[in-house]
Amino acid sequence: MEEIGKTRNWTKIAIAVLLLAALAMVFLISCSDQGEEGSNESAAVQSAVSGDAAAIAQERGLTPDDITAALKTYTPTGVHDEYIMFASGGHSGQVFVIGMPSMRILKEIAVFTPEPWQGWGFGELGTMEVLESGNIGEHELTWGDTHHPALSETEGDYDGEWLFINDKANARLAVIDLRDFETKQIVKNPIALNDHGGSMVTPDSEWIIEGGQYAAPLGWGYSSLDNYADDYRGMVTLWKFDREAGRIVPEDSFAMELPPYWQDLCDAGKKVSEGWIFCNSFNTEMATGGVESGEPPFEAGASQRDMDYMHIINLDKAIEVAQGGNTIEVNGFPVIPLDTAIEEELLYFAPEPKSPHGVDVAPGGEYMVVSGKLDPHVTVYSFEKIQAAIAAGNWETDEFGVPILNLDDVMEAQVELGLGPLHSQFDNQGYAYTSLFLEPSVARWSLGGDYAELNDDPEWSLVSKIPVHYNVGHIATAEGDTVSPDGRYLVSLNKWAIDRFQNVGPLLPQNFQLIDIAQPGDNLQLLYDMPFPSGEPHYAQIIKADKLDPWEVYPEVVWNSHTQSPDPNATLIGEERIERDGDNVEVFMTAIRSHFTPEHVEIKQGDHVLWHVTNVEQTYDATHGFTIPLYNINLSIEPGETASFEFDATEAGVFSYYCTEFCSALHLEMTGYLLVEPE
Amino acid sequence: MEEIGKTRNWTKIAIAVLLLAALAMVFLISCSDQGEEGSNESAAVQSAVSGDAAAIAQERGLTPDDITAALKTYTPTGVHDEYIMFASGGHSGQVFVIGMPSMRILKEIAVFTPEPWQGWGFGELGTMEVLESGNIGEHELTWGDTHHPALSETEGDYDGEWLFINDKANARLAVIDLRDFETKQIVKNPIALNDHGGSMVTPDSEWIIEGGQYAAPLGWGYSSLDNYADDYRGMVTLWKFDREAGRIVPEDSFAMELPPYWQDLCDAGKKVSEGWIFCNSFNTEMATGGVESGEPPFEAGASQRDMDYMHIINLDKAIEVAQGGNTIEVNGFPVIPLDTAIEEELLYFAPEPKSPHGVDVAPGGEYMVVSGKLDPHVTVYSFEKIQAAIAAGNWETDEFGVPILNLDDVMEAQVELGLGPLHSQFDNQGYAYTSLFLEPSVARWSLGGDYAELNDDPEWSLVSKIPVHYNVGHIATAEGDTVSPDGRYLVSLNKWAIDRFQNVGPLLPQNFQLIDIAQPGDNLQLLYDMPFPSGEPHYAQIIKADKLDPWEVYPEVVWNSHTQSPDPNATLIGEERIERDGDNVEVFMTAIRSHFTPEHVEIKQGDHVLWHVTNVEQTYDATHGFTIPLYNINLSIEPGETASFEFDATEAGVFSYYCTEFCSALHLEMTGYLLVEPE
Repeated sequence: MEEIGKTRNWTKIAIAVLLLAALAMVFLISCSDQGEEGSNESAAVQSAVSGDAAAIAQERGLTPDDITAALKTYTPTGVHDEYIMFASGGHSGQVFVIGMPSMRILKEIAVFTPEPWQGWGFGELGTMEVLESGNIGEHELTWGDTHHPALSETEGDYDGEWLFINDKANARLAVIDLRDFETKQIVKNPIALNDHGGSMVTPDSEWIIEGGQYAAPLGWGYSSLDNYADDYRGMVTLWKFDREAGRIVPEDSFAMELPPYWQDLCDAGKKVSEGWIFCNSFNTEMATGGVESGEPPFEAGASQRDMDYMHIINLDKAIEVAQGGNTIEVNGFPVIPLDTAIEEELLYFAPEPKSPHGVDVAPGGEYMVVSGKLDPHVTVYSFEKIQAAIAAGNWETDEFGVPILNLDDVMEAQVELGLGPLHSQFDNQGYAYTSLFLEPSVARWSLGGDYAELNDDPEWSLVSKIPVHYNVGHIATAEGDTVSPDGRYLVSLNKWAIDRFQNVGPLLPQNFQLIDIAQPGDNLQLLYDMPFPSGEPHYAQIIKADKLDPWEVYPEVVWNSHTQSPDPNATLIGEERIERDGDNVEVFMTAIRSHFTPEHVEIKQGDHVLWHVTNVEQTYDATHGFTIPLYNINLSIEPGETASFEFDATEAGVFSYYCTEFCSALHLEMTGYLLVEPE
Repeated sequence: MEEIGKTRNWTKIAIAVLLLAALAMVFLISCSDQGEEGSNESAAVQSAVSGDAAAIAQERGLTPDDITAALKTYTPTGVHDEYIMFASGGHSGQVFVIGMPSMRILKEIAVFTPEPWQGWGFGELGTMEVLESGNIGEHELTWGDTHHPALSETEGDYDGEWLFINDKANARLAVIDLRDFETKQIVKNPIALNDHGGSMVTPDSEWIIEGGQYAAPLGWGYSSLDNYADDYRGMVTLWKFDREAGRIVPEDSFAMELPPYWQDLCDAGKKVSEGWIFCNSFNTEMATGGVESGEPPFEAGASQRDMDYMHIINLDKAIEVAQGGNTIEVNGFPVIPLDTAIEEELLYFAPEPKSPHGVDVAPGGEYMVVSGKLDPHVTVYSFEKIQAAIAAGNWETDEFGVPILNLDDVMEAQVELGLGPLHSQFDNQGYAYTSLFLEPSVARWSLGGDYAELNDDPEWSLVSKIPVHYNVGHIATAEGDTVSPDGRYLVSLNKWAIDRFQNVGPLLPQNFQLIDIAQPGDNLQLLYDMPFPSGEPHYAQIIKADKLDPWEVYPEVVWNSHTQSPDPNATLIGEERIERDGDNVEVFMTAIRSHFTPEHVEIKQGDHVLWHVTNVEQTYDATHGFTIPLYNINLSIEPGETASFEFDATEAGVFSYYCTEFCSALHLEMTGYLLVEPE
């Protein structure tokens, strides 16, 4: 792994400063046309600033590129970032919100894993309910392996309203409301125990796609590996999203049975290809592993064939079939059987080289891009050609009877990029970008067709490459998987950091590298290395910040953030009280800077306590926390919110509850005594 | 709340560029003395770089200060940060590792809260054991409210070996090993349910101090608030740390009973005052709240007196008393009773104005600085005067019989700073810095005595103030609480962010503001706003990065990170196996890019499974993860490490285990089948 851009000698630094000086003169001349104030003030400013830019650059060994990168990314106090990246937190189970170009983490959104800062899963009843709905029967799940965040779309463009993300480890899907950046729903896939190809949305977010990964008997059942071809299956699940309710509607959703290839990543068609979805697959070898018995390990067994199959699914027709009831039930969930899918002409394959990771649909929907990670090319398919090939009916079938279109009939182009191509994104200048895991680098290449007009490079050709550090997986460009990518920035989601940062022990952060892609041709500049201090961040989406319009405070001082409506247990000032009914105690409390009311809660050992706290503030950022020792409770109560929890007072004693979110100069005094008298 | 530094007009930008140009010329002249290469290369570089610094500054509206701040903080790819900040993650329960001056988060260290990226508390037996040791009886605790990180010290200076941190919510203390940045131990305080004044270390880290907070009956017992003065007590606990073993030794530790004032924050004496400790207190009013019954709320009741009491404790003598057995047992833990402390001359008070937060001992140990948050001054005590006052024996006592020294006898100076002074740190130029919560700003003021020689400012005087955004709590300077502070940088740990960043919903990040304190006098520059995306970050310590020497990989390919020694269950290549003894199955597995061995684990429903995975790699950053769906297991296995977990195979089915840490191009193929045959 080569280090680049590390030569830092005085000569280069001198050049950097000269460059600044020369360019500054040009700039100053043009500015001084606009008035004389500049030169009047300059002497005063010069004398006031004793630490100077040139000396700093010299002292810190900054090169010319470093200086421009610093100025392109530095975001002064109070200036807001132009883009917001939603990055999967991988096996942290969470989502991270990152400002761009500053690459600062603005928030962690708790999704599948309890997180006490947000009061997520530490007693607050609404959060407990969301988490519990993701359990598998009696099996409590307290983490996830988040993979692909998907922003909701309207006509194929991000609308800033919702965010979906899947849990690969347990095949679950979560819905996050971007009014308050909180998770509102978790659904468990009823037919699969793991997934990968989620979540992706159709252009109006009516359907959320969850593709499978490792084949298994559908419905969580058991069968020996000896019966792999007969009993093991792949799948894709289509979840219906009710935007008005802000919830996935499981009873309106369905799945499709697929051959036991390992389906991987899907993308929805858009514009000309709207109504179709496309998924890659690997292990069409149907290898079942067994290295311990002398069989090839999966890594070899699943990498033998030159071609796997891109899955081409007629979604509109599949919806019709499902809604027409032409399904079987698996674990109570409607599934279109593979035979039905074939008969109803819902499913086609196209050969795709070799163990690819994902299908990426071009902004206009005309092209599907696949990168076989063991092949040096990207392969581009034409939706028009696919339709023609389907109409022509000229195909063979795989052993399950699925039609396999001829590659030559459906391929538009192949572009040789380099080693380990993995994932592609698009910009607004007719370029696509593909990560190359093995080099490691990011390639810029030119699209053909109508896109060719947008730049001067020959169509379907490699334009430029930029090295990254190290082991890039997915990449994300600004709005780069929508119908109208913004260009501007690309983030390389690197899985290894190695020497990029100060060593922090054997477990290292990931490395998000920000790349400037604004200039056409061979101009790609590495701007920033951002250590990502959490799980393997599988994928990210980047949205223009002004498309988001979150609440600053909750709309009313009685708010339940789970129902997004007034809470019947909300308590206003003057309504605080403690009610007792036998052994059941109910506390109605308010929180305001800097006290809780009541400050004494006197109960008896053995009582069951239901406790509501309303934050009656409407001041931006005036969040209060609430904890009681021993009972493992912590709430985050944002302005206007009501939070409830319950517990059995099994232990007698004196418990100081207090505000855990520093709220005022007298925050330490924001406390009270829970007195539990012994039985 | 005033916005500063936001005037961004073309004139200022023009001045910025002129400034750069003028300074660059000076710099270039001095550089060109060293050789002619600069000018030879400059033309080529100028023409090659089409995006230029001046245009970028203009386009992005950067002021002169912004430009210098950008150049002072930008850290190019592969360049390591000079300082590392360990920040408490507040009610996240974790610790965050932040590089400076880039202000990038390098790592989250899981402490009190399970975190799956690190495999902390998701089945791995060693992590489960550490977390369980922090439970209170049968009560499982799965979060904490981390407050004060304390780096281990040798002769009063950070040595980079260990980090300690307390959980305020449940009065616990954790030990983190800085060889691998992992938590090794959690101890529960046996006499208190909550704390605050932890953790601080003595100059050679032999003792870790944990002070109390809200008074309660010692030993977790019950008593009515009517008996407050008789039954409620404060405390300070002294935990013995065995550096060789890397563990706190509870059986060699002890506590001191204190009056039911709310002890808050302690600091150990150093150099001339080594062997003593100092703690502030508030609510010496002994207010018990009760706003719901017409009593003053705590915020008012605890703020009535003009003076609270700084606690002055003769630690060396207290250790003698405790080791001599002159203690009582509370919950099985030795406690020096208050009467004994008085008799043995272990405890004195000095009046301190008014509801302060913390005592901060100057680098040489001569002075103790207290800031009453409801008083506009910092009050400075002299250790020499304290000793003289104790020797003179001229005092009154409080109602518990504790001697109260006369303020005039022990005070060295008072400096008026402004509204809401909270916490002080020191630098290498004879300055102290104090956060002012209510202004909000950070004040620089000059020390007297020997420190006065280090700068030109009059001693014991306010020198400068810099506004911060917003509501600053603690501050941290580089090594600023050691015997040899570095100066350079100060971080203002602001509790509210409000408008500083793009809105991310009602719950906002905190804001760490980096301030350049390198220049003396009135020169303080705000460099960087860092959103802190987690809990209320109570306190932080900043260490020179080169003092840390963590492992890149574990020392041997058989490592147990909990014992920091070879693991008896480690498995090398060729030793993989599955052993069965009745219903007990034991799996010995290896992980290497890109397969697990074995790839099939076939068991029966009802089996109990104990499973070991050894990562046999020794490549830096070659971490593997491991998960099994449904059973809520996730491991992080760093190079050389062995991790073990166990579960009851209650569910039949086909479960794909896989690597959750993206490790190679064939990472997706790093999987295997757990087949659980039905009963």
